Amino acid sequence: MPDPIEFYFEFSSPYGYFASYEIDDIAAEAGRTTKWKAFMLGVVFKLTGAQPLSRVPMKGEYSIHDWDRVGRMTKVDWVFPDPFPIATMNAARAFYWLDDRDPELAKQFARAAYHRYFGQGADITKAETVADVAEPLGVDRSALLEAMADPVMKQRLKDETDAAAKRGVFGSPFVFVDGEPFWGVDRLPMVRDWLRTGGW
Amino acid sequence: MPDPIEFYFEFSSPYGYFASYEIDDIAAEAGRTTKWKAFMLGVVFKLTGAQPLSRVPMKGEYSIHDWDRVGRMTKVDWVFPDPFPIATMNAARAFYWLDDRDPELAKQFARAAYHRYFGQGADITKAETVADVAEPLGVDRSALLEAMADPVMKQRLKDETDAAAKRGVFGSPFVFVDGEPFWGVDRLPMVRDWLRTGGW
Repeated sequence: MPDPIEFYFEFSSPYGYFASYEIDDIAAEAGRTTKWKAFMLGVVFKLTGAQPLSRVPMKGEYSIHDWDRVGRMTKVDWVFPDPFPIATMNAARAFYWLDDRDPELAKQFARAAYHRYFGQGADITKAETVADVAEPLGVDRSALLEAMADPVMKQRLKDETDAAAKRGVFGSPFVFVDGEPFWGVDRLPMVRDWLRTGGW
Repeated sequence: MPDPIEFYFEFSSPYGYFASYEIDDIAAEAGRTTKWKAFMLGVVFKLTGAQPLSRVPMKGEYSIHDWDRVGRMTKVDWVFPDPFPIATMNAARAFYWLDDRDPELAKQFARAAYHRYFGQGADITKAETVADVAEPLGVDRSALLEAMADPVMKQRLKDETDAAAKRGVFGSPFVFVDGEPFWGVDRLPMVRDWLRTGGW
């Protein structure tokens, strides 16, 4: 059984959102599974000196235009949310708490949280809002709220983010196929080709 | 007759090099021509706060790995050159001087200069080296050397770079299709789809 394809994402990353619609299909085409991993892009940006895309002169305007265009092209719901970017530690902690219990449910939650933010434009910073997203999926609301405030889950997210940075994850989305790194939604076609051909 | 597809490139840009092998074919498939435009990426980086890719922590290591991989994937000659990046004003001035006389010859020169640097790993900073690249294409060596030192061509390159920045060109390669901007070699498939479908 080959290792799962690793999909690193930040909940406040538009390109991570778009990639979340594709990665499991790409893996399935190649008979592979995925392992999703949330991380805090802001922490990594401190290591690389990067800024949130929308705040970079010229690149920011391009990105805002591009997100609209990618939404139309892929027929994925897209709203440029306000505020943007946001702090996503609550969503990421919730993700790992769910992932420890039921990885498929954690993915469902991640898709729903992404859609709430980028598909509907609603701020998902607060723990209560994260719980609103998870509850309809059958998640125990009060247990999840407790988990998001739990120092153990806080440390867990820090550890996961540190581990991501140590592996060279400097952007979102970021994919590993058997250790081979691919950055960006633009590279998903290359991931597909890599899986199909065995790589170059 | 539709407008040419505009292809902005920096001579010290690996992804610009890879894109230079594809852009004319992509245009031709859609019955379109191209207009190549050299610019000074370093000047634009001062506006956006960007650093040369290879110097950015994590992203630099990824990029160096990626260039090798893209070379193997596309079967394009690739050597990570030393020094990198380099100052390319001589090559860019030579390009515009040729472009004013024979745009096809200017493209041939650009391809040859790119290949000398990234295909063979030879530094193309100096005017004499640029002349070495151009001479076998039938270019008058002494006229070209004079042009590269001419204040008029120096100003011309500044003006072209300022105009590029004003249009939002913040990276290399950068393509416009009827005003629609596309950044990066990763987006060439999207350029192709845009041309085929008329866009979204």
